Amino acid sequence: MTQSIGLITPQTLHIETPLPLDCGEQLSSYELMYETYGQLNAAGSNAVLVCHALSGNHHAAGYHSAEDRKPGWWDNCIGPGKMIDTDRFFVVCPANLAAYGGSTGPGSENPATGRPYGPDFPVVTVGDWVRAQNELRQRLGIEQWAAVIGGSLGGMQVMQWAIDFPGRLLHAVVVAAAPRLSAQNIAFNEIARQAIATDPEFHGGRYLEHDQVPRRGLMLARMLAHITYLSDEAMRDKFGRDLRQGQLNYGFDVEFQVESYLRHQGTSFVDRFDANTYLLMTKALDYFDPARAHDGDLAAAFAPVTARFLVISFTSDWRFAPARSREIVDALVDAGKQVAYAEVASTLGHDDFLMTLPHYVDTTRAYLDHVADEVGA
Amino acid sequence: MTQSIGLITPQTLHIETPLPLDCGEQLSSYELMYETYGQLNAAGSNAVLVCHALSGNHHAAGYHSAEDRKPGWWDNCIGPGKMIDTDRFFVVCPANLAAYGGSTGPGSENPATGRPYGPDFPVVTVGDWVRAQNELRQRLGIEQWAAVIGGSLGGMQVMQWAIDFPGRLLHAVVVAAAPRLSAQNIAFNEIARQAIATDPEFHGGRYLEHDQVPRRGLMLARMLAHITYLSDEAMRDKFGRDLRQGQLNYGFDVEFQVESYLRHQGTSFVDRFDANTYLLMTKALDYFDPARAHDGDLAAAFAPVTARFLVISFTSDWRFAPARSREIVDALVDAGKQVAYAEVASTLGHDDFLMTLPHYVDTTRAYLDHVADEVGA
Repeated sequence: MTQSIGLITPQTLHIETPLPLDCGEQLSSYELMYETYGQLNAAGSNAVLVCHALSGNHHAAGYHSAEDRKPGWWDNCIGPGKMIDTDRFFVVCPANLAAYGGSTGPGSENPATGRPYGPDFPVVTVGDWVRAQNELRQRLGIEQWAAVIGGSLGGMQVMQWAIDFPGRLLHAVVVAAAPRLSAQNIAFNEIARQAIATDPEFHGGRYLEHDQVPRRGLMLARMLAHITYLSDEAMRDKFGRDLRQGQLNYGFDVEFQVESYLRHQGTSFVDRFDANTYLLMTKALDYFDPARAHDGDLAAAFAPVTARFLVISFTSDWRFAPARSREIVDALVDAGKQVAYAEVASTLGHDDFLMTLPHYVDTTRAYLDHVADEVGA
Repeated sequence: MTQSIGLITPQTLHIETPLPLDCGEQLSSYELMYETYGQLNAAGSNAVLVCHALSGNHHAAGYHSAEDRKPGWWDNCIGPGKMIDTDRFFVVCPANLAAYGGSTGPGSENPATGRPYGPDFPVVTVGDWVRAQNELRQRLGIEQWAAVIGGSLGGMQVMQWAIDFPGRLLHAVVVAAAPRLSAQNIAFNEIARQAIATDPEFHGGRYLEHDQVPRRGLMLARMLAHITYLSDEAMRDKFGRDLRQGQLNYGFDVEFQVESYLRHQGTSFVDRFDANTYLLMTKALDYFDPARAHDGDLAAAFAPVTARFLVISFTSDWRFAPARSREIVDALVDAGKQVAYAEVASTLGHDDFLMTLPHYVDTTRAYLDHVADEVGA
């Protein structure tokens, strides 16, 4: 646990104010689970919001017990003296609606029926998440975030914050994201959804009531996702064409190391994730497209922005390639906004945003140090 | 049927000479289904072998009946006056062992049991296929192919021919291929196999005996393959983020055009393909690696080659990118062999090898015209 924020206890906020959703429905009440790291200063000016991605939740850093073998999902980057420095910032990470293992979602009890929501949980959007996060902000007594930070789907939430609540954040840090999914991105999501939805144990999303889990579908979805998280180069460096037993077996058991890796990733995911959550997360990704309301003009979508941006991409990321980040940067420039951009030479792929490449960490820490100075943290 | 070779009747060859396989087993007898287009000249010098890829078979060109709505899989490129000109060449296209709808394969009767082979059909390799094709060559009375031609997995067979039977071909035309799969290529294949093998209707490969088909698995495998056949750019041009009904529906039915396309590709494939064949084809791809026996030295693997090569790649192909073709070219050069290389500017992706981009068709036709002149065709 060296350099870790240490033991952390998640907190839960019950919100009774109805939340209107983009789909037209509303949640009459809901819970947000969140964690905080570091101390809010007297001026309340040093709060940083961290937004999570597809498989993340509120547990971004530290450990829940001394027996935990793994820390939170971004422990690499959040902690004392780390990229997001908890000695200077008060870091808040909520689980989004429908995220796994946290806030209100498809596994929660539907007040209308007394049974789990399952497939009846509404299709939530990045906009819905940000509105819910804003309710949390208010209740924590934070006037304005010093920064909102997120990678991948988390970076989409950062953009949405800057558009929807311009007065509520000073800085926006968007890592390894895109202004909208490409057709190929949507295609990958659709195959993952089909894998889950066609699993006979999915039961139309009511698998909990059948005491079953669509393991096969969820496993396939995760295996597929891992292909997009790693660069071709990283796969070559990690696995090459290495054979697990040093020889071809002319059969269908695991032979190449990469097969072994993927099967392990797939099967271990099943025990710690929920199928309906996976479906909803991929839909939120597909739907995100702030330019849609402006005839595809992203600069017009950014018109209300007052936050200053740091945008970071990784050269080996083919899920959200640097060209996608440059679309964000170009649109911000066209809209007359302030934006810094770093393209980090990398080899791992999309997963690099969870790692600690020096160019990435040093650039971001330097930027955030200035933010901390600015807000008197 | 303009410019088509017209009506074609497939032929079948029963071969009673046992075929030893790389896996150590042997086929005591087998059938090869094949088609021929054009006329063998008196010297027997104008024969061209066409090798098919994963989902192909013997039906490469023409129509089987006047009612057929679609011609053979490479009708674009094989016919009178076309890239592979049947006015000059006698073109032979066999279905490989285990290919769908043709030669002996997992759906054939296993002489040992009187039931379909199913999962007991041996894992066949590119080397096995080429040995079987060589039996066909002999029985057709062809001393030497003027050229052996193939794209993708077909291109791998072309390389194997040049290595294993150097005296039996004058020219080798390798289109959109690779000297071995990358870890990422294997990963995609593994997910496809897992999708099929974990489908409850797969029944360990004995689905025919259960009168069932692992439709879901085969559908997912095909959807996934289509992502790798099309470039990101082609997907954007074809589908963008277009919505089928012009608006978001906040549900899990088809919304984006690309979803509709993939589901159609997946479901239509199920009716015309076999799951065990899919598994075997992906294994043949994974195993192909002529450099393996030479400590990874591809130039050493090419040492026996006497054929002259034409290698063609497509700039937008990310399944087998131009860099993979250049590995082939570089190794041939290092081995002191004769090779021409064309990198065709393209947008569609891997599928471009089935299309008729002028640079591709003109280069290949010009090359083959010289071959025809050379053999007196």
